[in-house]
Amino acid sequence: MGNTVGEFRKKLKIADIKGGPDGGLDRVGQTLVVMGWVRTLRVQSSVTFLEVNDGSCLSNMQCVMNSDAEGYDQVESGLIATGASIWVQGTLVASQGAKQKVELKVDKVVVVGQSDPSYPIQKKRVSREFLRTKAHLRPRTNTFGAVARVRNALAYATHKFFQENGFVWISSPIITASDCEGAGEQFCVTTLIPSSREATDSPVRAIPNTKDGLIDWSQDFFGKPAFLTVSGQLNAETYATALSDVYTFGPTFRAENSNTTRHLAEFWMIEPELAFADLNDDTACATAYLQYVVRHVLDNCKEDMEFFNTWIEKGIIDRLNDVAEKDFVQLPYTDAIELLLKAKKKFEFPLKWGCDLQSEHERYITEEAFNGCPVIIRDYPKACNWRSRHSICGKMMMGGL
Amino acid sequence: MGNTVGEFRKKLKIADIKGGPDGGLDRVGQTLVVMGWVRTLRVQSSVTFLEVNDGSCLSNMQCVMNSDAEGYDQVESGLIATGASIWVQGTLVASQGAKQKVELKVDKVVVVGQSDPSYPIQKKRVSREFLRTKAHLRPRTNTFGAVARVRNALAYATHKFFQENGFVWISSPIITASDCEGAGEQFCVTTLIPSSREATDSPVRAIPNTKDGLIDWSQDFFGKPAFLTVSGQLNAETYATALSDVYTFGPTFRAENSNTTRHLAEFWMIEPELAFADLNDDTACATAYLQYVVRHVLDNCKEDMEFFNTWIEKGIIDRLNDVAEKDFVQLPYTDAIELLLKAKKKFEFPLKWGCDLQSEHERYITEEAFNGCPVIIRDYPKACNWRSRHSICGKMMMGGL
Repeated sequence: MGNTVGEFRKKLKIADIKGGPDGGLDRVGQTLVVMGWVRTLRVQSSVTFLEVNDGSCLSNMQCVMNSDAEGYDQVESGLIATGASIWVQGTLVASQGAKQKVELKVDKVVVVGQSDPSYPIQKKRVSREFLRTKAHLRPRTNTFGAVARVRNALAYATHKFFQENGFVWISSPIITASDCEGAGEQFCVTTLIPSSREATDSPVRAIPNTKDGLIDWSQDFFGKPAFLTVSGQLNAETYATALSDVYTFGPTFRAENSNTTRHLAEFWMIEPELAFADLNDDTACATAYLQYVVRHVLDNCKEDMEFFNTWIEKGIIDRLNDVAEKDFVQLPYTDAIELLLKAKKKFEFPLKWGCDLQSEHERYITEEAFNGCPVIIRDYPKACNWRSRHSICGKMMMGGL
Repeated sequence: MGNTVGEFRKKLKIADIKGGPDGGLDRVGQTLVVMGWVRTLRVQSSVTFLEVNDGSCLSNMQCVMNSDAEGYDQVESGLIATGASIWVQGTLVASQGAKQKVELKVDKVVVVGQSDPSYPIQKKRVSREFLRTKAHLRPRTNTFGAVARVRNALAYATHKFFQENGFVWISSPIITASDCEGAGEQFCVTTLIPSSREATDSPVRAIPNTKDGLIDWSQDFFGKPAFLTVSGQLNAETYATALSDVYTFGPTFRAENSNTTRHLAEFWMIEPELAFADLNDDTACATAYLQYVVRHVLDNCKEDMEFFNTWIEKGIIDRLNDVAEKDFVQLPYTDAIELLLKAKKKFEFPLKWGCDLQSEHERYITEEAFNGCPVIIRDYPKACNWRSRHSICGKMMMGGL
């Protein structure tokens, strides 16, 4: 009684086929199966072109079909249209097109999920505001697909870097009673409010209260007020003083109503904590980490980064190459101020010793004074927080990453 | 102006020294530095033994010190005691003790952080309830250190498995308005309640309300009720139908007041979503994943697993070896019921077709009927949820992992 579970095999993806050094020519002649979503369909007199994307890379697989292919009637009946999910079997052949080295000569096509002309993401460009209203489909666009793949590469490179350097990953608590020394405004986490998604039936009088009209926290889930973490730092510190080098990498929350590209209510944060280390070790670690992940993305997400470089932020690849290859500079705060005061440049925000630096100052330092080298400014006066800063990184986040 | 950031180098840890196949003998004669925390100090007439742990592994480095070592006066003055953090330099020599192959003959010791006899974690065993009151120090105990290292290994192996198999990691939203088809009770996330950590100043009347006495959600942070995620599945599905194979691995929350070892208010959950796959692909993936991470932990956390096997749950290594090596069995629900009804065993919970299985039934199937092979029960009747089950895995979670 009972059967053995079958063997698990990695699926062959379009990235595997086209991602080699010769763009797939090494597989010419092989019978392959591609499964993915139709990006475009062009029916010409003698031949039909299907562009199929499976999300493993930005590139589509061009599938070329004659009317004698098995399942061709589904093209004629309209079942295969932009947005349809299909299974295609064919022979890989060298392509005559300039855009790709190989294409699939189709023997058989099967529709897994059909589509129709109302499918909202057709070939023409659509705005991000429009895509916000079709959130379930936007991962199928070039931009969101590329962001997902690059984000995935950055996350995995983060784990690889710290693991290879002997750090232990710590999952610090998300629900907490600690405000981590006031790192930010906190969200309250509670079961005291009747938790229905209908906004109309949450009467305030249903919230448990004491005879003084105060919220009765003893009746809340944890018996006292609880919040979303603003930082895992204090937890990480207790582990660093036991396991030596640790890092957190998890979601973090700030209830600050700032609508800028640098503020988010929810974001994933990396917090390395080094034991038996000083500020020099810390900057060396931060530098090595940034260079590692940037190099990883440039090496592993070439096509996606070229897409960003062309369509989202021109020059991003050059700037990231600077981060990966140039020596990072560390500059004491006082020297940075001196350098900025001497600069032959008019800044919007006036500057004096003791001020926090603005983006324009950071950009001047990295882009003009140090010619694209990332700069870490250290030894801040106590009045400012100590922070490591390099506007290249700020730019990187603005480049859709 | 400005200096280049120094090179980052991986720290040499006790695990690196003692972790090799010959227990460190290959490094005998080398001058090494160990940094860590004093577990015990034994002052004998001619020599002093310091057991130092740096959290990289369960093992301590035995440091042997004569009174002529630089810094020995700190032993005499009591600065070096259990719990102190120290920097030790010495020569690695073969050890005459039976417990280790090498020890460090100390040339110099520096106290980084002193301790005193009030340090609460002395050599004698302490209860977990006691450690709960010293949460900032418990990562320094054998149990919590081993749990942290094994948890880290499981998390990294999880990423490695999915990344090596072409899956894309998705960070599904933590704050959400979706209840994921009622997967569990939700926590409410809000800024409407005055967010002070002082339980005494949260007046109910300060919560914004409408003239009907209802909570005015339009004044909340997101302008409507928001909750902590109970599952990222729906998000993962939208990405799977664009990127093919994806997984989530992030914190998940259930506001269910069940105080069992199988229920947590906050836990990290892994949700793979496969495109163009059926139930056979799914069970094959789950099986391959479990075998991969279990093998990874058995190979990379030997010492910690032996500690669990001796002190926390006898037999855990054998059971995990079964998971890693034996073929998984898949059994239709109806066959499982038939097998249980025929069993010459009296169950506490009576059984009939349509019932959900209890732990005792799962244990009988895996441990007796299939002799330790993990079993996946599939094709549940619609009345039960479809679930993959194997009590080995439940046991694993109970083994302190």
